[in-house]
Amino acid sequence: SNSKLPDVGTTIFTVMSKLAAEHDAINLSQGFPDFDCHEGLVSLVNKFMKAGNNQYAPMSGIIGLREILAEKIEDLYGTQYDPDTEITITAGATQAIYTAIAAVIREGDEVIIFEPAYDSYQPAITLNGGITVHLKLRTPGYTIDWQEVKRSINPLTKMIIINTPHNPTGTVLSAADTLILAEITKGTDIIILSDEVYEHIIFDDQPHHSVARFRPLAERSFIISSFGKTIHATGWKVGYCAAPKNLMAEFRKVHQFLVFSVNTPVQFALAEFLGQKGHYLSLGKFYQQKRDYFIDLIKNSKFGIVPSAGTYFQLLNYQTISNEKDTDYAQRLTKEFGVASIPVSAFYHQQEDNKVLRFCFAKKEDTLEKAAVILNKI
Amino acid sequence: SNSKLPDVGTTIFTVMSKLAAEHDAINLSQGFPDFDCHEGLVSLVNKFMKAGNNQYAPMSGIIGLREILAEKIEDLYGTQYDPDTEITITAGATQAIYTAIAAVIREGDEVIIFEPAYDSYQPAITLNGGITVHLKLRTPGYTIDWQEVKRSINPLTKMIIINTPHNPTGTVLSAADTLILAEITKGTDIIILSDEVYEHIIFDDQPHHSVARFRPLAERSFIISSFGKTIHATGWKVGYCAAPKNLMAEFRKVHQFLVFSVNTPVQFALAEFLGQKGHYLSLGKFYQQKRDYFIDLIKNSKFGIVPSAGTYFQLLNYQTISNEKDTDYAQRLTKEFGVASIPVSAFYHQQEDNKVLRFCFAKKEDTLEKAAVILNKI
Ligand SMILES: CSCCC(=O)C(=O)O
Ligand SMILES: CSCCC(=O)C(=O)O
Repeated sequence: SNSKLPDVGTTIFTVMSKLAAEHDAINLSQGFPDFDCHEGLVSLVNKFMKAGNNQYAPMSGIIGLREILAEKIEDLYGTQYDPDTEITITAGATQAIYTAIAAVIREGDEVIIFEPAYDSYQPAITLNGGITVHLKLRTPGYTIDWQEVKRSINPLTKMIIINTPHNPTGTVLSAADTLILAEITKGTDIIILSDEVYEHIIFDDQPHHSVARFRPLAERSFIISSFGKTIHATGWKVGYCAAPKNLMAEFRKVHQFLVFSVNTPVQFALAEFLGQKGHYLSLGKFYQQKRDYFIDLIKNSKFGIVPSAGTYFQLLNYQTISNEKDTDYAQRLTKEFGVASIPVSAFYHQQEDNKVLRFCFAKKEDTLEKAAVILNKI
Repeated sequence: SNSKLPDVGTTIFTVMSKLAAEHDAINLSQGFPDFDCHEGLVSLVNKFMKAGNNQYAPMSGIIGLREILAEKIEDLYGTQYDPDTEITITAGATQAIYTAIAAVIREGDEVIIFEPAYDSYQPAITLNGGITVHLKLRTPGYTIDWQEVKRSINPLTKMIIINTPHNPTGTVLSAADTLILAEITKGTDIIILSDEVYEHIIFDDQPHHSVARFRPLAERSFIISSFGKTIHATGWKVGYCAAPKNLMAEFRKVHQFLVFSVNTPVQFALAEFLGQKGHYLSLGKFYQQKRDYFIDLIKNSKFGIVPSAGTYFQLLNYQTISNEKDTDYAQRLTKEFGVASIPVSAFYHQQEDNKVLRFCFAKKEDTLEKAAVILNKI
């Protein structure tokens, strides 16, 4: 083929959000809130724009925001990052993921990812000449088979991408998982890319096992997170990457030529807003309440509820309802019934179909109620 | 080396802006205005934020903005682009440049660029496995040697990057240049990347010879432009790419996994703002007045003035003042005299030193006056 990404179509999030709009369906597909962003933020952005902060931010982000992130990471997870050399603000987590991969992956390098996997990992690896090694999370429970990981590691293995809390399944890694990962990769040069964009959305009083809790791992990890999910403004496209100095130096070499810098007034607003500590702590409770509300509404439906421990996604199993492929069923659910979701096969390179759909519950109660009325009728 | 970009340091714009800040120097280095962004824009962004437009924009950008761009390009340059499939909003022009290169350049492909060249081209080519072929613009006048281009083209040539108006020299391509380029590449598959980020900053009533004026070229070109330069808000990081459907399809495959989407309220604000036509037309005059003001202030200094036909940059030659390397002289001018500029050798892969510095005149008259007082004393 003439394409560098011959197998890639339009991302499933675009496909389903478009379909939802066309059929006036309730959009529980792409992950974004249908309620306002955190109070006060809009006027902060406005304040900084009006004060004239509208030109290029420094390439690595404004220092005030990087300092607040360094404090947060140390407070929550115990590892120190130097805001000057070890933290960079990015145009969303997706850009951070792409940049980390572009910074270190070369022709022929192997990268292990776990399926179902966020859909940007593989194209980013492919575009940078890497070979994606797809391992499957074990079902039920979507856990990592560490013996299989161990067997898959070889001298070509350059990176392992983990994601906790996990999109699309809502599972979280345990401390044991992280320790095994440290153990398995000890003495190697394998780099960990830890996608922690839902770090503050974790339920039932569980801790988030950030790689930043485990110094031996953190020492060779890119940790990537997102502001959009934390402040309910996914459209502002701001995220960040934390990594030890040597890795961050390579990251920035790419970042400066890939996007150079990130929206300035938004960065100032975030720095001031996040400076008022502690609000991270309520995000888990906020979304747990939504998860529980949604689950309670549909508990008598024919859908099977797959436990969600984090993220703002809920998997529902429809195997007692239909034999259709999940892509077909997700389409029909959108077009005929008016609820859009994401077919989980979209997160497998071979479109593995386990008859599960992903529903986003980052929605107003009213929206969840309307969706539940429909789902309960099926 | 262990780095994918062993020769790359921190971009010169970051280096000089930082040095300027440290020494409290007048910063005429990195290209950004020191005056407010276009009136009305800040309140438009605020309006759209307050109205709740804070979640992901569509992957290719909001359709209203893409439609306005299609109209503009057709009005000004005569070529039609389908806003649905041929225009994509990007996180600044730098991201568009990187994405276009990542979308089509493979291991071993050759890309011709002209030096002095914007500093992101070569790293983007290198990171995507391409080979950069550096041709020099002829001095004086910084014109392209088309015979040399012709001789350099071979079956590996995949792309030619042009830039008009040209950063850092302020030169512009003529209609003849574009016709020769079309002629030379006729019948080949060579893709043109046309960096036109200063398209609206062109002086002395000259037209901008966009590739979009030449259908045979436009049919295989990525045209990249920027909003930040047009609206005086470089820190909002919004640009765009226009390309025929087949090229745009490849561009979007990468874009969706590289950054996914771009700040939503800013896009809505730009669409409403740019919908009031005609304001493009005054930008050339606005900056011509600044160029003339700056030149007039320093016409009796020892610096040699290199004619600038576009962009907001002015090259000054210091060969009658000092023998120092331009990097050293730029440093000294910043530290000892208090005016920061960009040494033009930074735009040559072999640091060719022609004793010229680049000064940004996108500044208040007061700033230009203060700088001139210093430059006149040297
Ligand atoms: C970048 S669009 C996708 C949003 C998201 O993270 C998801 O829906 O999984
Ligand atoms: C992206 S920072 C550099 C700004 C600019 O285009 C320049 O100064 O040449």
